[in-house]
Amino acid sequence: MSTPKAFSTIVRFVAMGAILTLGSHARAQTDPLPSWNAGPAKQAIVSFVKSTTTQGSPQFVPVAERIATFDQDGTLWVEHPMYSQVMYVLESVPALVKAKPELAAVAPYSTVLEILKGDRAALAKLTMPDLEKLAAATLTGMPVETFAADSKKWLAEAKDPRWKKPYTELTYLPMQEVLKYLRANGYKTYIVTGGGQDFVRQDSETVYGIPPEQVVGSAVATTYGYDKDHKPFLTKEPKLLLNDNNAGKPESIHLMIGRRPVMAVGNSTGDQQMLEYTKDGGGARLAMLVLHDDAKREYGYGPAQGLPDTKVGNFPQALYDEAKKDDWVVISMKDDWKKIFAFEK
Amino acid sequence: MSTPKAFSTIVRFVAMGAILTLGSHARAQTDPLPSWNAGPAKQAIVSFVKSTTTQGSPQFVPVAERIATFDQDGTLWVEHPMYSQVMYVLESVPALVKAKPELAAVAPYSTVLEILKGDRAALAKLTMPDLEKLAAATLTGMPVETFAADSKKWLAEAKDPRWKKPYTELTYLPMQEVLKYLRANGYKTYIVTGGGQDFVRQDSETVYGIPPEQVVGSAVATTYGYDKDHKPFLTKEPKLLLNDNNAGKPESIHLMIGRRPVMAVGNSTGDQQMLEYTKDGGGARLAMLVLHDDAKREYGYGPAQGLPDTKVGNFPQALYDEAKKDDWVVISMKDDWKKIFAFEK
Repeated sequence: MSTPKAFSTIVRFVAMGAILTLGSHARAQTDPLPSWNAGPAKQAIVSFVKSTTTQGSPQFVPVAERIATFDQDGTLWVEHPMYSQVMYVLESVPALVKAKPELAAVAPYSTVLEILKGDRAALAKLTMPDLEKLAAATLTGMPVETFAADSKKWLAEAKDPRWKKPYTELTYLPMQEVLKYLRANGYKTYIVTGGGQDFVRQDSETVYGIPPEQVVGSAVATTYGYDKDHKPFLTKEPKLLLNDNNAGKPESIHLMIGRRPVMAVGNSTGDQQMLEYTKDGGGARLAMLVLHDDAKREYGYGPAQGLPDTKVGNFPQALYDEAKKDDWVVISMKDDWKKIFAFEK
Repeated sequence: MSTPKAFSTIVRFVAMGAILTLGSHARAQTDPLPSWNAGPAKQAIVSFVKSTTTQGSPQFVPVAERIATFDQDGTLWVEHPMYSQVMYVLESVPALVKAKPELAAVAPYSTVLEILKGDRAALAKLTMPDLEKLAAATLTGMPVETFAADSKKWLAEAKDPRWKKPYTELTYLPMQEVLKYLRANGYKTYIVTGGGQDFVRQDSETVYGIPPEQVVGSAVATTYGYDKDHKPFLTKEPKLLLNDNNAGKPESIHLMIGRRPVMAVGNSTGDQQMLEYTKDGGGARLAMLVLHDDAKREYGYGPAQGLPDTKVGNFPQALYDEAKKDDWVVISMKDDWKKIFAFEK
């Protein structure tokens, strides 16, 4: 063992190990958030992750408690000009009308057919009760497996008219990086969405690496029953069980996760209570809001900071002021994001 | 490198690696279920785990889909003579009466005080509406954190009268082994209980290694609000949101997990639909029922197979017959379990 030859062999082995170790160390030192510009938002994320995951840090959080919750629409992917689940509802109407042709002449089905023919202005004619009626007709009344197959198919095929790409490609690259960075540091990432959880669960794993059991969303009741062969199945009922918006977000987080998140990210009034609840937990907490202030690369809406007003993903000045007062971080898409979509050159 | 000395050094390294590998292989070969007697139940579990986790097996289940759900009361721990959460409700009454002394003379509070003084027969006087009233008074109306602290304290201190041990020590060792065996093979283990999820979540991690977010149970609605300092908190409301018994089990599994389990274990009619739903999923599925047929070491009740009838954890002959017909495995505590509790000699 102590001859020079044997020694050199050992040195080779040790050196090889050292190179492998240094290699992984060097990799760990590369920027985990390359699509973010240097600035307070990026800095806040990196500092938060370091302080909550470094052993001995006064803000250390045990792995089991590392829960981070993300709104989806407008936070993880594009929500303008209309939430993609609403597009699913509208685009499911032709199949409904095919099955029941008499619906073609009845509002709101007739209005939807006009919209789908290209009459975008007709969209404004749809009232909230219209949308509720359409949602009940397209999202409920079928076995959960049927809905899963239909919505999965739509998500694979439907395209956003502006980018001519599947909605599932309109996710924000900087947020995908945050999700991965958190998971690489022992965080469990959850989607907490006002959208339907049965809808979002269809592709959360492939799109975000988030498994269905980590998707919390609005939900209707289901009813267990049997078919004629005594085969059990669950039917989606037109009865809202969880409205996962506003106060519904912390309520659903308690119900579905049972722990208060350490970090939460949203982009509108629907996320306000989730962020308040998260930030108030004591210790290191990170609350963030995405501000859509990049009309050129994506969309510009608020009305905070003088941006155009909107009904879809409303971010009023009062929410902006609460964020500043309570030390939440506002992410400027324009200033903080080097690249918004993975497909950008 | 090719001198005999160098060669022998490499051999040493390789041999060391082989020994380490063989060592872990040998460990993997030791019995994962030492508290189980050899028999069809143990065999069914081992075969199921092997066939669903061996690459290339026709019944292989990807890691992401390895979901196993376990009822708690009577399946993972003792439920006789009374569910421990009911004991929590009863034993919380003195504190209620202390806060409102006028309740001492009013039924059902007065009845509970008699029971706690030792008059066990008075337990029979409590009707279902009485229990609902007591549950509402002791499980709701407070912030979720207050309930969490109270129930955690009780679980740490309260003792079962027969064994004079904390309820949390009355878990079944053979089931603890199954939970660990499944997790070692990539399964995510869930509790799906008719008990309150806020109650069970207090110690599921320490007692079973199951984190709170993997506990699905009955749940009341909560309401988000603010205290006088604008500090947000959630209040438990006397309004049942999820009744996680019977059909409620598969309904809640869909809501909370969003995947059909591959394996499910229960012990009473409350678990019937969960087992049907699991077994009907196609591919390899394992459904099991624990039969309490060991009056000596634990309790004997059914009324299946001529065992004494009971209201707590009822296992009727019809359920036994369904199990036999549909290829569910009935676990005999008497025959299949070598040891029931970890504290047994």
